[in-house]
Amino acid sequence: MRYAARRERLRATATERGLDAVLVTDLLNVRYLTGFTGSNGALLLRADGGDVFGTDGRYTTQAGTQVPDLELLVDRGTVSALAREAVLPRSGRPPARTIGYESHHLTVDGLRALESVLADAAGGIVPELTSVRRAVEALRAVKDDDEIDALRRACAVADAALAELAAEGALRPGRTELQVGRELDSRMLTLGAEAPSFETIVATGANSAIPHHRPDSTELRAGDLLKLDFGATVDGYHSDMTRTVVLGGAADWQREVYELVAAAQAAGRAALAVGADVVAVDAAARDVIARAGHAEHFPHGLGHGVGLEIHEAPGIGQLGAGRLAAGMAVTVEPGVYLPGHGGVRIEDTLIVTDDEPELLTLTSKELLVL
Amino acid sequence: MRYAARRERLRATATERGLDAVLVTDLLNVRYLTGFTGSNGALLLRADGGDVFGTDGRYTTQAGTQVPDLELLVDRGTVSALAREAVLPRSGRPPARTIGYESHHLTVDGLRALESVLADAAGGIVPELTSVRRAVEALRAVKDDDEIDALRRACAVADAALAELAAEGALRPGRTELQVGRELDSRMLTLGAEAPSFETIVATGANSAIPHHRPDSTELRAGDLLKLDFGATVDGYHSDMTRTVVLGGAADWQREVYELVAAAQAAGRAALAVGADVVAVDAAARDVIARAGHAEHFPHGLGHGVGLEIHEAPGIGQLGAGRLAAGMAVTVEPGVYLPGHGGVRIEDTLIVTDDEPELLTLTSKELLVL
Repeated sequence: MRYAARRERLRATATERGLDAVLVTDLLNVRYLTGFTGSNGALLLRADGGDVFGTDGRYTTQAGTQVPDLELLVDRGTVSALAREAVLPRSGRPPARTIGYESHHLTVDGLRALESVLADAAGGIVPELTSVRRAVEALRAVKDDDEIDALRRACAVADAALAELAAEGALRPGRTELQVGRELDSRMLTLGAEAPSFETIVATGANSAIPHHRPDSTELRAGDLLKLDFGATVDGYHSDMTRTVVLGGAADWQREVYELVAAAQAAGRAALAVGADVVAVDAAARDVIARAGHAEHFPHGLGHGVGLEIHEAPGIGQLGAGRLAAGMAVTVEPGVYLPGHGGVRIEDTLIVTDDEPELLTLTSKELLVL
Repeated sequence: MRYAARRERLRATATERGLDAVLVTDLLNVRYLTGFTGSNGALLLRADGGDVFGTDGRYTTQAGTQVPDLELLVDRGTVSALAREAVLPRSGRPPARTIGYESHHLTVDGLRALESVLADAAGGIVPELTSVRRAVEALRAVKDDDEIDALRRACAVADAALAELAAEGALRPGRTELQVGRELDSRMLTLGAEAPSFETIVATGANSAIPHHRPDSTELRAGDLLKLDFGATVDGYHSDMTRTVVLGGAADWQREVYELVAAAQAAGRAALAVGADVVAVDAAARDVIARAGHAEHFPHGLGHGVGLEIHEAPGIGQLGAGRLAAGMAVTVEPGVYLPGHGGVRIEDTLIVTDDEPELLTLTSKELLVL
């Protein structure tokens, strides 16, 4: 059972840190550890087992289906109820004396409420609260087979949506960025996505030089670059892909910039290896662009981890830290942006493996002239 | 200018509470006060004016377009940079001595980072940090004309999507809940929504008795109830509507439950008046259901505020508190759920006015037999 295996990894961390229990309140971390997809849920993980899943009455049925293997605690004040359970267990187990919590997620008000519940419930011996920081996010950086499968399906939906739109001639002069974005989004839903992974970027002409342009009523025109950065969410997992095409026919400068970015992207992909330093991976692609004299036209990091969040660990950039491990899912997305002129970004989602990285976004990276 | 007017309302609150400045970090509150729609932004609002909007380098262009009226501070550590600006202003203004922050939003780690920045930057005189709690959310509960217009357009998209699907015969026996849900979502995008307001609920047969059923591969069957709870997001504002229809022909018990819920919903709508206690509004609908002997089959609140969030102030339920004011946008959504059998919910989004409430979700509430 994948969720049980994930909880065992967190339990090992908790035991290592001398914690009797961990209160997991970040909803995505809860989902990762239990499978629960509702909008309110928390997990009390105990060092000695006997984990408890908490939610409110709206989700009693759903919790029974999605989290059948854990003891269920239904309470409107979910986190407080789990904290009480930690220090005043309903079963005969000993009360927790040291409790980990997620200080990067719990709000200031949430911590105060938690402290007050613990003080009330524990009587004389108030347990110690210690942050586990991003312990669950650290586990999430390395994907298991189920997660890679979901990412693969999410990438396939995005690939298919773009292929269908291109085949139908939907990417043609006269249409607006907003129209194209909506069709891409709606096509991904039809193909099985729960939602777009993020606000789809459709940027044409000079707008393509803006790294995160929001689609507007700008019309596609012959001779312009068209940059599409989009993804699909499937079973909670996000795909992320950018392709840049040209409408009607490519000018020399467009072809040059495209080939430069494609070479940088290939270098970045080639640098994805188990044990590689994320700063070196970024540099592998960045150096290609810098050698061509465009260093200042690539103002963002090379990539990021992707999974239950569209941006998660590891960050791959000049300010990153750490090394790649097998099973990490990351993007490689260099770009060159010439303000007022146009820009190209090419982005894939890949899995780091002991061998070659596995490419999940399969749409061609040849310069497509539509 | 609507954003400036909203900031003036918050400035009045800040002055009342003796604060020199407020650091707004909740992204929706930032959007409400500035118009910024990116994924990282914060606002330093000063009691004496001279507000500063902060974001990072990805959003320099977007901030220039969306927040042209505020001083811009671009920094990867956005909140820290704004905190430094509060106590060490770049202009000649006096440093802030009392700073409000959002303790329901800022994380424990975020507060520590803020305290440390302030201690470093302020030298000897560390300013006092005071929570403003949900001050911005309280302002957001009463919508201005621009917000009501966005809600009206969001509701119109949902109305149109359902009308089109019904007209095309998409709601027919043999199709699955998932298919219907995806078509509804994809149709809303085509009609101009940025996204569905929440995970669309499509529940048929016995599933309709589950208040928050997630659509699955259950097929629609003749003689079954079909409950659709969905909404569209337009310009960031969420619509929310539920309709329950019957496929093929209504049995007596279905018609009875439907008429009961419709009567309760009408009573709830009629109770929406300026000054009405939210508990009394809930009771107006709940009493109708209780008198019919179904009190225990209506296990949730009557409604909630809706706007930049799908659930926001005011809550309308037995545990609610407060009174309605003109300009509040709320749902009225009683339901009766007979476990194992089927359930009916009818929900509208409305605006409270000095006169009759304005109905924004215009789809008929007559029992539709498809």
